[in-house]
Amino acid sequence: MSTSVIRTSDAWWVKNADRATKIDTTAVTTGELLADRAAITAASGDSVAVDGLDLISPVTRPCRVVAQMTNFESHVRDSGMDPKTIPLTFFRKSSASISGPFDDIVKPAHVRFLDYEVEIGLVIGRDMPVGTVLTDANLGDYVAALVITNDVSARDIQLPQTQFYEAKSYPTFTPVGPELVLLDATELARFGDLRLTLSVSGDERQNSVVEGDMIFRPLAALQSLTRFQDLAAGDLVLTGTPAGTALKAPPKPIEMIGALLPPAVKWKAFFKRQAGNQKYLQHGDVVEATVATDDGVIDLGAQRMKVVYA
Amino acid sequence: MSTSVIRTSDAWWVKNADRATKIDTTAVTTGELLADRAAITAASGDSVAVDGLDLISPVTRPCRVVAQMTNFESHVRDSGMDPKTIPLTFFRKSSASISGPFDDIVKPAHVRFLDYEVEIGLVIGRDMPVGTVLTDANLGDYVAALVITNDVSARDIQLPQTQFYEAKSYPTFTPVGPELVLLDATELARFGDLRLTLSVSGDERQNSVVEGDMIFRPLAALQSLTRFQDLAAGDLVLTGTPAGTALKAPPKPIEMIGALLPPAVKWKAFFKRQAGNQKYLQHGDVVEATVATDDGVIDLGAQRMKVVYA
Repeated sequence: MSTSVIRTSDAWWVKNADRATKIDTTAVTTGELLADRAAITAASGDSVAVDGLDLISPVTRPCRVVAQMTNFESHVRDSGMDPKTIPLTFFRKSSASISGPFDDIVKPAHVRFLDYEVEIGLVIGRDMPVGTVLTDANLGDYVAALVITNDVSARDIQLPQTQFYEAKSYPTFTPVGPELVLLDATELARFGDLRLTLSVSGDERQNSVVEGDMIFRPLAALQSLTRFQDLAAGDLVLTGTPAGTALKAPPKPIEMIGALLPPAVKWKAFFKRQAGNQKYLQHGDVVEATVATDDGVIDLGAQRMKVVYA
Repeated sequence: MSTSVIRTSDAWWVKNADRATKIDTTAVTTGELLADRAAITAASGDSVAVDGLDLISPVTRPCRVVAQMTNFESHVRDSGMDPKTIPLTFFRKSSASISGPFDDIVKPAHVRFLDYEVEIGLVIGRDMPVGTVLTDANLGDYVAALVITNDVSARDIQLPQTQFYEAKSYPTFTPVGPELVLLDATELARFGDLRLTLSVSGDERQNSVVEGDMIFRPLAALQSLTRFQDLAAGDLVLTGTPAGTALKAPPKPIEMIGALLPPAVKWKAFFKRQAGNQKYLQHGDVVEATVATDDGVIDLGAQRMKVVYA
């Protein structure tokens, strides 16, 4: 059965329903905790109410944060691209962007268009140097746990820069948790049944199941990543978001005209139109995200973040 | 006066002309070495011929490798863009791509168009958390040293993916060194006088001076980077390459037609044309790169790598 680990500033805990039991471990980082499975299994004794705990990200930083670009068919179509020819593509996020599952999302003053992307995060459980051979049989040895993540994005930085790194790396742009859900191989095989949802101030924006929507699943993604990226225990891989972000591709005729303009002119016109898009995150918005199988057997919990303008 | 540090698999050395003196230090990483300045200064005693040493990258891995996109006016124009509106943009490279200054550059079997980019690498000398305030006066406290780097690029991966991360991260895609040149503030102020050159099997391809060509200099770059990326001692920041890479933007009319095609069709046509471009790196090519001021006061040495097809 899956094990849910949560974290406060002074301890790691095993969560059972609405109670939590402290883990007796010296682990400081997520990588160290994942190496101390015996302590997680042995957690017993007095429990406290989860409600009374101030939960922080169960993935510690620094760590590597790698993310998959456009990886859900629904989101690829939303972005004006073709799911059949979209390449498996990664980018990096700064781990300085990691924040807790109930922290504020802070919009830097220079950013105009703040967007959300609920994603499933894979937490790596053991060192995975370049050249590691991954198979269906050993995938569970490397993917130790799953977490909810939000790939918060500054669209007005991302699109003109073309590289996604800065626009998705400002502090608080990667809320993680609350639960680090350790899965065995059988449970990991149910990855396709996971449903991702995200709402903004009660308005549902994203709702999709992995099966039938995600293009490159974890095995294919990690097989490709291990051609060029060393990973270590505690590193985090984001697997892409489904349709429903505030940003959508412009209608085809407008995109074609835009392609003929110098980039600076094109983006000025594009963001002038986006100013009328009410879906971008506003000061005071509440962003809630969940990831779980519909039968509740695997449940990564729920994030709840408030948006704050710096 | 600047100090040149070189590295073999078993030791750090101070280089003076063609002789090297071992540094008495327990430092394993570049960050640790930079913290042990006393040992570098104290290096004395028997010297050996540099020629007899098998030099490896003076920047150890793992470390963060951050790179600036299109940052020389000449290269921006080569790429069909406008230097006046190009945004200051970063991407990440995997530190697994770091190799020695005389190692082979290995083209992975799936890569077709292998390109070169000589760049100046900034080596960070002390922790620089997000929010660090950088000024002309304290820049030298954070930029401890300079190195030659080559931002080797798989163009057929890079362009369709749009994100540069994978295409520039395969093993041996970041040759570094040979010399880690420690500069004081006065020397660092001569950054603009540095000339970068690169030749392929004796044919000069790149030759440019920073002053008048580089768009975002280290102070501006690091001020921007510190908004979202923690850096630590030993991390590496690549500052962009001048004109002369094998890849050039297509003529404007062809680019405009391409913009109207689906990406997969556009890239197929583009790479069909590139197949006739003889400047991409071929098996057996020798890539030589230098960075120095014309008066030789600052001299980062010379890289010499052979290209090998896997």
